[in-house]
Amino acid sequence: MKRTLGTCYYPEHWPEDIWARDAAQMIDAGLTWVRIGEFAWSRLEPSEGTFDWAWLDRAIDVLGKAGLKIIMGTPTATPPRWVVDKYPDMLAVDAQGHPRKFGSRRHYCFSHVGYRDQCAIIVEAMAKRYAAHPHIAAWQTDNEYGCHDTTISYSEAARKGFQDWLAQKYQSTQALNAAWGNVFWSMEYDSFDQVDLPNLTVTEPNHPHQLAFARYSSDQVVAFNRVQTDILRRYTDAPLIHNYMGRVLDFDHFDVGADLDIASWDSYPIGFLSDRLEASEAHKAQFLRQGDPDMQAFHHDLYRAVGRGRWWIMEQQPGPVNWAPFNPAPLPGMARLWAWEAFAHGAETVCYFRWRQAPFAQEQMHAGLLRPDSAPAPAFAECQQVAREIADLPDTDAGPSDVALLFDYPSDWAWKAQPQGASFDYFALCFDTYKALRRKGLNVDIVNAADARLADYKLVLAPGLLSLPQFILTQLPDYQGTALLGPRTNTKTDELSIPLPMGPNLPGLEATITMTETMPATALMALDGGGSLMHFFEHLEGSAPALFKTQSGLPALTGDNGLYYLAGWPDQLAFDRILRHLCEAADIATMSLPEGLRCRTTSTHRFWFNYDQTDTTVGDQIIPAAGVHWEAL
Amino acid sequence: MKRTLGTCYYPEHWPEDIWARDAAQMIDAGLTWVRIGEFAWSRLEPSEGTFDWAWLDRAIDVLGKAGLKIIMGTPTATPPRWVVDKYPDMLAVDAQGHPRKFGSRRHYCFSHVGYRDQCAIIVEAMAKRYAAHPHIAAWQTDNEYGCHDTTISYSEAARKGFQDWLAQKYQSTQALNAAWGNVFWSMEYDSFDQVDLPNLTVTEPNHPHQLAFARYSSDQVVAFNRVQTDILRRYTDAPLIHNYMGRVLDFDHFDVGADLDIASWDSYPIGFLSDRLEASEAHKAQFLRQGDPDMQAFHHDLYRAVGRGRWWIMEQQPGPVNWAPFNPAPLPGMARLWAWEAFAHGAETVCYFRWRQAPFAQEQMHAGLLRPDSAPAPAFAECQQVAREIADLPDTDAGPSDVALLFDYPSDWAWKAQPQGASFDYFALCFDTYKALRRKGLNVDIVNAADARLADYKLVLAPGLLSLPQFILTQLPDYQGTALLGPRTNTKTDELSIPLPMGPNLPGLEATITMTETMPATALMALDGGGSLMHFFEHLEGSAPALFKTQSGLPALTGDNGLYYLAGWPDQLAFDRILRHLCEAADIATMSLPEGLRCRTTSTHRFWFNYDQTDTTVGDQIIPAAGVHWEAL
Amino acid sequence: MKRTLGTCYYPEHWPEDIWARDAAQMIDAGLTWVRIGEFAWSRLEPSEGTFDWAWLDRAIDVLGKAGLKIIMGTPTATPPRWVVDKYPDMLAVDAQGHPRKFGSRRHYCFSHVGYRDQCAIIVEAMAKRYAAHPHIAAWQTDNEYGCHDTTISYSEAARKGFQDWLAQKYQSTQALNAAWGNVFWSMEYDSFDQVDLPNLTVTEPNHPHQLAFARYSSDQVVAFNRVQTDILRRYTDAPLIHNYMGRVLDFDHFDVGADLDIASWDSYPIGFLSDRLEASEAHKAQFLRQGDPDMQAFHHDLYRAVGRGRWWIMEQQPGPVNWAPFNPAPLPGMARLWAWEAFAHGAETVCYFRWRQAPFAQEQMHAGLLRPDSAPAPAFAECQQVAREIADLPDTDAGPSDVALLFDYPSDWAWKAQPQGASFDYFALCFDTYKALRRKGLNVDIVNAADARLADYKLVLAPGLLSLPQFILTQLPDYQGTALLGPRTNTKTDELSIPLPMGPNLPGLEATITMTETMPATALMALDGGGSLMHFFEHLEGSAPALFKTQSGLPALTGDNGLYYLAGWPDQLAFDRILRHLCEAADIATMSLPEGLRCRTTSTHRFWFNYDQTDTTVGDQIIPAAGVHWEAL
Repeated sequence: MKRTLGTCYYPEHWPEDIWARDAAQMIDAGLTWVRIGEFAWSRLEPSEGTFDWAWLDRAIDVLGKAGLKIIMGTPTATPPRWVVDKYPDMLAVDAQGHPRKFGSRRHYCFSHVGYRDQCAIIVEAMAKRYAAHPHIAAWQTDNEYGCHDTTISYSEAARKGFQDWLAQKYQSTQALNAAWGNVFWSMEYDSFDQVDLPNLTVTEPNHPHQLAFARYSSDQVVAFNRVQTDILRRYTDAPLIHNYMGRVLDFDHFDVGADLDIASWDSYPIGFLSDRLEASEAHKAQFLRQGDPDMQAFHHDLYRAVGRGRWWIMEQQPGPVNWAPFNPAPLPGMARLWAWEAFAHGAETVCYFRWRQAPFAQEQMHAGLLRPDSAPAPAFAECQQVAREIADLPDTDAGPSDVALLFDYPSDWAWKAQPQGASFDYFALCFDTYKALRRKGLNVDIVNAADARLADYKLVLAPGLLSLPQFILTQLPDYQGTALLGPRTNTKTDELSIPLPMGPNLPGLEATITMTETMPATALMALDGGGSLMHFFEHLEGSAPALFKTQSGLPALTGDNGLYYLAGWPDQLAFDRILRHLCEAADIATMSLPEGLRCRTTSTHRFWFNYDQTDTTVGDQIIPAAGVHWEAL
Repeated sequence: MKRTLGTCYYPEHWPEDIWARDAAQMIDAGLTWVRIGEFAWSRLEPSEGTFDWAWLDRAIDVLGKAGLKIIMGTPTATPPRWVVDKYPDMLAVDAQGHPRKFGSRRHYCFSHVGYRDQCAIIVEAMAKRYAAHPHIAAWQTDNEYGCHDTTISYSEAARKGFQDWLAQKYQSTQALNAAWGNVFWSMEYDSFDQVDLPNLTVTEPNHPHQLAFARYSSDQVVAFNRVQTDILRRYTDAPLIHNYMGRVLDFDHFDVGADLDIASWDSYPIGFLSDRLEASEAHKAQFLRQGDPDMQAFHHDLYRAVGRGRWWIMEQQPGPVNWAPFNPAPLPGMARLWAWEAFAHGAETVCYFRWRQAPFAQEQMHAGLLRPDSAPAPAFAECQQVAREIADLPDTDAGPSDVALLFDYPSDWAWKAQPQGASFDYFALCFDTYKALRRKGLNVDIVNAADARLADYKLVLAPGLLSLPQFILTQLPDYQGTALLGPRTNTKTDELSIPLPMGPNLPGLEATITMTETMPATALMALDGGGSLMHFFEHLEGSAPALFKTQSGLPALTGDNGLYYLAGWPDQLAFDRILRHLCEAADIATMSLPEGLRCRTTSTHRFWFNYDQTDTTVGDQIIPAAGVHWEAL
Repeated sequence: MKRTLGTCYYPEHWPEDIWARDAAQMIDAGLTWVRIGEFAWSRLEPSEGTFDWAWLDRAIDVLGKAGLKIIMGTPTATPPRWVVDKYPDMLAVDAQGHPRKFGSRRHYCFSHVGYRDQCAIIVEAMAKRYAAHPHIAAWQTDNEYGCHDTTISYSEAARKGFQDWLAQKYQSTQALNAAWGNVFWSMEYDSFDQVDLPNLTVTEPNHPHQLAFARYSSDQVVAFNRVQTDILRRYTDAPLIHNYMGRVLDFDHFDVGADLDIASWDSYPIGFLSDRLEASEAHKAQFLRQGDPDMQAFHHDLYRAVGRGRWWIMEQQPGPVNWAPFNPAPLPGMARLWAWEAFAHGAETVCYFRWRQAPFAQEQMHAGLLRPDSAPAPAFAECQQVAREIADLPDTDAGPSDVALLFDYPSDWAWKAQPQGASFDYFALCFDTYKALRRKGLNVDIVNAADARLADYKLVLAPGLLSLPQFILTQLPDYQGTALLGPRTNTKTDELSIPLPMGPNLPGLEATITMTETMPATALMALDGGGSLMHFFEHLEGSAPALFKTQSGLPALTGDNGLYYLAGWPDQLAFDRILRHLCEAADIATMSLPEGLRCRTTSTHRFWFNYDQTDTTVGDQIIPAAGVHWEAL
């Protein structure tokens, strides 16, 4: 399939007399897709039940006639003021008990049934009117679920919903009390309506209580989204898409994705470097205008899994954004590099956000392909270049991968409730693992831990999984490849208690975790031969042989016959040593890439990405700063 | 005019039998003025409508007969408990929605009409009784408006008041929606009573919404103060004064000052160093017991503008205070140095706060001229010395200035709503500019940007102005001096949106900002020839010649013929290079002063202030640590 | 008296069929005591008035028959859900006004009379049933009063209670206004029901207002505990105990202790190092797996005073805990070292917490003597070793001490309200003093400042006391030993105002504090001869001779004839010099111990504790890391 480009456009923000020129210029930029509609509720339904389709009809007409395919967004991320006046209790409530007020976006509680019904009305009205329209080629539901910490709401609607959800799940409070260990501090309940939300308690709430509320909250996102997909399916066969936000883990993207056809995500490499990445100041300085070299690829590989192979970038940073603590301009070339890296990981489409920088409101300092005065911004030419290059190149795909990284959203919720050490974070552990694989030049598939098929891979890594599903445990004995599990994997039940016998309980691996400890970042546990473990360490006993040991003689990595358990969180050198060992044993060829150089190998080409601020070389090939290079296999 | 000294006194805090001795000792200290009354409401009106003037009559009598001139303060910063019982909703409300309770001071919301009426009653009663009194020579309204973050209140009174204010300003919600760009996220309103205060939103509220609330809140301070000045004007011709607090920018001091005769400010150099100054640890250590060498002068020059030439220090730190994170004792000599620096900047009067250290309540660890046991504190002798020196010297004035720094409170509100980078702060930018001028030994006038007359100055600097008023834009073409605008100046409309054509839109300067970026403090943009820009950088295009460039070739300062635009925030070396260049061109003689030495040149003398902990020299003259030296011109 | 060991057990957490095996294994571990009952309210009284004693009867039977002595805990730290349903307003309220919800523990307000009554019912029911039981040998009231910041509650119950308490104390608002200096900011009250709790004020509330509320809150803990002890006394002569938590100072432990027979505390050396100790990163790294070398001893000596000689460790950390920011495993040997250090300071009993690691709920990652799978955890063998060693050794006691450190809870509350400098903390000052004494190898008695008998000691230190009780002042003139008071001691009245004449007002010491200043940690005041003062400095005037001076010539330590005042907070070197001087003069032999080595001298032995990670030597004796060594005197 030919890869395509697109952009995000808000006709309601601009005078109608420039729409046609915009559309023509989009074609000139090499774009195929344009997303519209997503925040336009106040213009589509200015008051309850009064719809104004005329302007949108005309916008679709102008864009479609210019040759663009339209992604129609449902506007449910921005309920207008009259909806809030109708349902004052639809506002989400923060952990301190304050309603989160109208005046920005995403001001709704996923648990509020009235709001869901209201969304159904606007979505059905849009579906009825536009599903059959020849220019509407895809639909996007809402916008960035969970962004601005909006998955969790401590509202009255959430409290009632949670109680019902618990009643369904446990059937009796006795069962709930037993499952959560509520006897511990006389926390037992006699009826479900006694169960409150786990905020504002004196000290930490019971960990399974927290986990249950996280599961419930994730389920509400799924249910909210499904209201929309159920309606849209009745009217259209066009692909349904949601645009996920980077490093948002508080709902299960696999679950939401199951109701959609394509996963997409919003990629802001420089904003994320500033806003949501644990890294040294030196690392942040090195990649200030490029973004972390692995952050985008990680999400590409994750959303390829969420989309069951089909995925897009719905919003691609084109220049400085407005919302991170610091907002530098990308190095020239990065808007092209980011797009090509997405394509090399299998993206079907990359849409730059946004078409024209809006001169007003909250995002007025967020760059677009055009400046506020409609002159081309620097990314415009890079976008054109990518369009030309797509035309010249054979189709790309993600290419095959020997390596799988198992990923699981509930594990993040569990460890958030029970980190045990202040520096333990599930995403950070997975990301460190992923970075170690990328330094070796490997293609990686990120796979939903709930239904991973191990046999598809030579090497499987599963760090930090709350519990291994039976589906995985069953595969382990016959698995011919190499599996590295841990730290912390399968050390808990699904109810976040310690199983008996104690973890990791891996068939064929005689090892038991007898004690767990956590340390500040400065207290490293040095390994024999180089490298260290950090943050988190599990004491193992059992007959499994130790492949790596700490200098004090404790097992750091144990196992044999392709099944291994890792007792701690390796630093970079330790990860490199461990992966070298395992890849050699698994007959996987590896490289050793510097921090700024990354590659991805498709079915036909190897793509190189220079994330550094200076030139680098691959063989004889010089790759300039922010440069992309591809070579046929 | 002969300069004078004074102090702040609370007769209600002390037994009546020591008032006469206090008054005599004030005369002995060389004082002319004494401020009383400001927190005494519970003693003047112990219950509603019951006034007790007798004690104040006697205090005035004792002080006046001793030869002191009295500043009478209105007590409205400390409403007594019965006022709060009468109007429970008069308490200001914090950003989290909590009423700010009785039990300290400034516990009122500026928007509360009932409280304004209550203040009118006590102020009128005081005016009636004392306006004609021969010993009452000046009046002070309230105390330190805005101190303890009290300008902004999220109360119900503020919500209603804001809605009315918006209705007056915009006349229709359509106009408001258009002005704010509310279409952006379906934030449009159908009626003004839908507009809430901009707190507790999911993500940031719309920037013009925030700016409008800041403008509204400032207007309430003006209105609150005007209630008092309107009453007082009916009874007295004595000068009306308010004592502003250092680095409080959340209401427009020029607007409040327009209703007053004299501006005064409360100068706590060591407290401010600890509490409200961005500076390195080394800088804070160097000036631990002296205060920053420019912080006082900046405010002197600012309040000279606010007072249209007439200004005082109403409260001068005499020793350790109680309220900063750390409260060291001043170096011996500083209480004299601070007073002389104020006089050299044109102060009419310097009042030390307070007469005697109170042994009780919140400020019991705040030094005075006397210790709690009535023995003289170290500042007492320094005060006497200043009094003697005033007698010996010819009158001082502020002297003429070749240089103006344009200053504008709404710009601070705008950039607080839209900093774009975490390290952007309007005051800090202005203060860095001011420090650079002071390192060159220059007299500076700080001028209200709304009505600056450029022709009065050889050099005008205008960093960080939201928008240039038409009054300034009209002057630019004919201005014969040198104007340096930017960064960020005139890049927005008054509604905090991007103008089209885009800024800075300076007549005669062909330059347009095409992109803005922000960086962490460690990411410097080096200039050709030395120095760097930091924090904030604007990409300029256009035909204006670049006087300074970044090492990567981007314009850093462009323009010619005396009109220049600065594209970023210079560090110290860059500022020194830029000012050297501009001053030479403008024929302004400069010096190059070390960090601890500062000067101010009056019409008759040049005053030198050694802010350092060690001796320094000026020519042959040795100036000891904390020393002052003056030489006739 | 022979020292004993014990553990904490929760039979309701475990299947009944393993109780007997557990009991037998406790005996095998060398344990004498087992604590039960403390969190079991939901199982003892599952609904109001319905008691289920059967399971507890059986547990007592099994444990007692195995030979264990039982400490019965009252379960009032964990009111079950039905109690909260009955009294929804019994929840404590945090400083922001939020009720602290059900779902963890300690969710009650000490001021709530209904809850006190409810506690009386369950306590009386337990007392009736078990007081006469032969296996019940001691009682524990509640659990860790004040833990999780639960002493202070801003509830309606507290507000009413506080008003009543004030009315009792002051009898008239005139008296209260005068005592607090409420005239200062028109804060005067006309009736007690106008007095609000001192939270959410605009700036800091009046300091005596804060202090009064701290005194009131402490009194409620005393009253709450007394409800239980009054009941228990009517049924039993067994010793009554409470288990205090480390570094909790917000209620007066001496006052609570007066109603009890034995003081006990919960010792978590590694958790406290991570969670509640000001120390450099290097210090925290050095003692990461051992805990601070003085933190335990300080509390041992403190609780020996609280228990009037009788004290226990009720909970001793045995391995990693779950609640600190970081939770490393102890060095092998520490579980033994900690126990022996307690015995050397006079502990009667050390109970390890907990018997078996619970696999569920909030503390599932908290180690016990047994692992969750009932295998012995590392501390089990160390516990057995201590049991054997106890049997072999003569009885220990705390030994005599030449040195007393006066300690006073209200002083902490006073300085919390009025720190004057951000780094001033009463506990930290006392702890630095204590560490200095321990570096000299000295036995220290910590003594309640309210009733200290100076004549019992050669050297008395009293840093940071709000005011000296008349009882102490009366002793000073005839005291033959050496007393070192200050900094800050006796500088205030009990109402937290400055006395006249000003402090320290010591009979026989001609010195007055004329000025107080505070500095950041980097601003040291160097002393002549080495060392520095830091944080806090008082300027002294008067004829008392200065034994130590600052390099700038100011008195740092003044006095003679055995009575001295210290003007600041010494750093380590300054403390060492000062103590060397005073101990020599007082004829007290001292040592000079490295940071990781500590000793305690009982009546018969000197015990050495190596807190370091490497071997050390004492004379010819090598003491391994985490080792204990004792030698007969």
